[in-house]
Amino acid sequence: MARLDGHWFIVCRSSDLGRAPRAAAIQGVPLVLFRGEGGQAGALEDRCPHRNAPLTAGRVVGGQLQCAYHGWRFDQGGRCRAVPGLPGEPEAKATRATAYPVRELDGFIWVHSSPSAPGAEPTTEPFRFPHLDDRRYTTVRRDFFVASTLHAAIENTLDVPHTAFLHGGLFRTARKENEIEVVVRRWSDRTEAEFIGEPRPKGLAGRILAPQGGVVVHFDRFLLPSVAQVEYRLGDASHLVTTTAMTPVSDFETRLYAVVTFRLPVPGWLVKPFVMPIAAQIFRQDARILTMQMDNTRRFGGERFAYTEIDVLGPHIWRLLKQAERGESPAYAPGPAGAPDHEHRLRMRV
Amino acid sequence: MARLDGHWFIVCRSSDLGRAPRAAAIQGVPLVLFRGEGGQAGALEDRCPHRNAPLTAGRVVGGQLQCAYHGWRFDQGGRCRAVPGLPGEPEAKATRATAYPVRELDGFIWVHSSPSAPGAEPTTEPFRFPHLDDRRYTTVRRDFFVASTLHAAIENTLDVPHTAFLHGGLFRTARKENEIEVVVRRWSDRTEAEFIGEPRPKGLAGRILAPQGGVVVHFDRFLLPSVAQVEYRLGDASHLVTTTAMTPVSDFETRLYAVVTFRLPVPGWLVKPFVMPIAAQIFRQDARILTMQMDNTRRFGGERFAYTEIDVLGPHIWRLLKQAERGESPAYAPGPAGAPDHEHRLRMRV
Amino acid sequence: MARLDGHWFIVCRSSDLGRAPRAAAIQGVPLVLFRGEGGQAGALEDRCPHRNAPLTAGRVVGGQLQCAYHGWRFDQGGRCRAVPGLPGEPEAKATRATAYPVRELDGFIWVHSSPSAPGAEPTTEPFRFPHLDDRRYTTVRRDFFVASTLHAAIENTLDVPHTAFLHGGLFRTARKENEIEVVVRRWSDRTEAEFIGEPRPKGLAGRILAPQGGVVVHFDRFLLPSVAQVEYRLGDASHLVTTTAMTPVSDFETRLYAVVTFRLPVPGWLVKPFVMPIAAQIFRQDARILTMQMDNTRRFGGERFAYTEIDVLGPHIWRLLKQAERGESPAYAPGPAGAPDHEHRLRMRV
Repeated sequence: MARLDGHWFIVCRSSDLGRAPRAAAIQGVPLVLFRGEGGQAGALEDRCPHRNAPLTAGRVVGGQLQCAYHGWRFDQGGRCRAVPGLPGEPEAKATRATAYPVRELDGFIWVHSSPSAPGAEPTTEPFRFPHLDDRRYTTVRRDFFVASTLHAAIENTLDVPHTAFLHGGLFRTARKENEIEVVVRRWSDRTEAEFIGEPRPKGLAGRILAPQGGVVVHFDRFLLPSVAQVEYRLGDASHLVTTTAMTPVSDFETRLYAVVTFRLPVPGWLVKPFVMPIAAQIFRQDARILTMQMDNTRRFGGERFAYTEIDVLGPHIWRLLKQAERGESPAYAPGPAGAPDHEHRLRMRV
Repeated sequence: MARLDGHWFIVCRSSDLGRAPRAAAIQGVPLVLFRGEGGQAGALEDRCPHRNAPLTAGRVVGGQLQCAYHGWRFDQGGRCRAVPGLPGEPEAKATRATAYPVRELDGFIWVHSSPSAPGAEPTTEPFRFPHLDDRRYTTVRRDFFVASTLHAAIENTLDVPHTAFLHGGLFRTARKENEIEVVVRRWSDRTEAEFIGEPRPKGLAGRILAPQGGVVVHFDRFLLPSVAQVEYRLGDASHLVTTTAMTPVSDFETRLYAVVTFRLPVPGWLVKPFVMPIAAQIFRQDARILTMQMDNTRRFGGERFAYTEIDVLGPHIWRLLKQAERGESPAYAPGPAGAPDHEHRLRMRV
Repeated sequence: MARLDGHWFIVCRSSDLGRAPRAAAIQGVPLVLFRGEGGQAGALEDRCPHRNAPLTAGRVVGGQLQCAYHGWRFDQGGRCRAVPGLPGEPEAKATRATAYPVRELDGFIWVHSSPSAPGAEPTTEPFRFPHLDDRRYTTVRRDFFVASTLHAAIENTLDVPHTAFLHGGLFRTARKENEIEVVVRRWSDRTEAEFIGEPRPKGLAGRILAPQGGVVVHFDRFLLPSVAQVEYRLGDASHLVTTTAMTPVSDFETRLYAVVTFRLPVPGWLVKPFVMPIAAQIFRQDARILTMQMDNTRRFGGERFAYTEIDVLGPHIWRLLKQAERGESPAYAPGPAGAPDHEHRLRMRV
């Protein structure tokens, strides 16, 4: 699958990294995370340059990460600051550890997928989750792990047809009573599907979520390199955005950091107990099928997918990932995107 | 090992395939078996052509196999009959699943090792077990699994010298008191060894099995692609044929479907309780040594066998399998075979 | 790692090989050890030449190793002495097993890493452990297994800087109060480091071990192909030599046969209970870090070591192993070695 160089990925929540070093991985590269001087997060390749012991087996001493074998110490920049037994200046005589740029933002630790180069900072900054500072929104965070390629996990998150079938009864029905219109657009850094004509929830639920009536607005979006976003508006009163930043841990392992932000006519604390178990159930079903899909793909020696018109975003996600792999597509830049490179319309039964 | 295209192999007993889909494999190709319209057995590659989920995770709905991910449905021919959410005719828009020809015969389900081609049926039919309809014969069936190559499993089943040693005391002794003559013959679709001069069982057993006396007739046969047969006659009264159809599940896994048919001067129900535990013990000993042989072969990076003249059928089995692999030898066709391509005689001590 | 042909390696202690065959391995080659005629130890490739069954599954009958499958029997030279069922002379008709030269010395069984050639004996003999016959010395033997390359295990055994850190407090302190001189010498069959100026143990321990005072003499030595030796003298009274002969079981597995011989002013039986638990603790710490180092090396696709001047023997061990691999360096020959090929001095803090 795609090797995405020069991109930011989440490696853990801020609260997950304490005094002890912690293991992480991006695209198969093992990393050690630690808090160095001033509690600032650092990320090194998880291999001491001296005898290749894993630095995750070491500990943090005086704001430096100390290897468990010979006691070499490194700072967040990868500089060797101590070699026990060696007379003279260690930094001049010892080899640096490979370091990676790190950012701590919105309660997450992000690591750049290309190593730090001396004197050069990354040209982009990590993705920012929407509505976190808006007090009208309630926020819920959940992390998940799936044994899946990044591509299959993103497509699953943004795929409408499987929801009625795999998650039948949870939030769509298998009855397919309505035929709606879908508009698909692709830019160089993102792709989206707009679903027009989806019915409002019936009965009491509809009256609570959209008391003044109004239309349903539904967008599914993929933002390079690895963000899947589902946005719903019901009239003026209800707005829900689920944004999932995904980390390709290896070719066959993906970690999902989901941030759900919503504003509803009823208080968030009232909604959570009803919504969270359903969301957890949906995730379990998706994780199970993605693992089966992955295992089967490996058993047959690779993906061989077939597409129909209702696999609306799949081909565009694949195209953008491949372009990003070749360095031809940039990371998503917030804000309006101008005219799309591609647009088409289709009909789907939901 | 040999990849045998265009041959029939048993995948399970008829009674093993009920309402739920069932996994099988031939030569490393994962299959899903199911009973479609009218209960007719079908075999598809165990991969949905859409997103590659395993079809064994699905279920049978309305005589069609339904994928667990997006609900695509397939019939026994691999045609896609439903795509939830897709307006219009699914068969025209969706990709077929890869299907394999299937036959249900003699209580077994056979699958062809080459996929179905549109409008073309296999040119051969599966092997038929002998004496199943003859009311004078008693039939016993047993299935076994061995971690072994097909070649090593076939040779083991037809190898005489190991029986006295590995199974010492069970049906041959290690004392080697008799020297007998062996005639080895090979045709394009089979090879056989005829053992001449084997002693009749001593004492009571001999008087029961061959009350009028007479000679012992003993044939070991290999029939392409994978049938091992051992036939014994003692005088006119006793006749025993053990026919084992083997399925190469993978290069290192073989499944054995053994059918024992016999006609004896004593009733079958009287003999079974004495014979079956011995047969089970023999199989356990063979399975154990075959697994050790297989593991050791893999550890050393491949088979390196040495032959002596008493490895009578081994070289001919190997030759026929290699010829079948190259498409030069046909599946066994019942009936007399004409003059053999090869014949030689040797002496062996038993 | 190095494939060292034509060298002797220990496969087990003499007392480990009884009536039953025993499995061993050198550099990934599986062996079967057994005691043949007269109790003499033999070593064959653990594969019957007939059907490749593992000979370790057989048993010793009449001083010959009998295969469990067809009962072929082999002597220590690999000659086939019996083939059940085969008329005539087995030795003429059957294939030999691959045999390896064996020596039983000093309570160990040594096997040559190149197979026996007909009519040719190895040109070297195994390494002999020092002081075993000197009644003034106490001897302790211990076997260890580490998941490590031979190279990393040897370097670890002879590495001084890690002792203060990894084994901190056990026999060196991390305080590094003394700067000493090290002389490094390399010959074609060995390399050594002489440590000059190491302080004597303080207080009571020093008075007991060196009652008349005197200097500390400390040598670390590597002797081709795989012996690591640490020698300490404290004045005239105390002398301790730890000699570890290592066996490369596979590229990633090493077995250590350590022989500790010592002569002290206090009786050996008095010292053992204090020293052995410390030695065991040191070994556990080393085995743990070596396994982590090995796993990490494999995870990153190979060793990438960095050296400083206090990695005194590491580069020379590597060079000698590589030369031995290419057949350019001979096994260690006892006795004085003449002028070294290489000598340099450096300072280290201990």
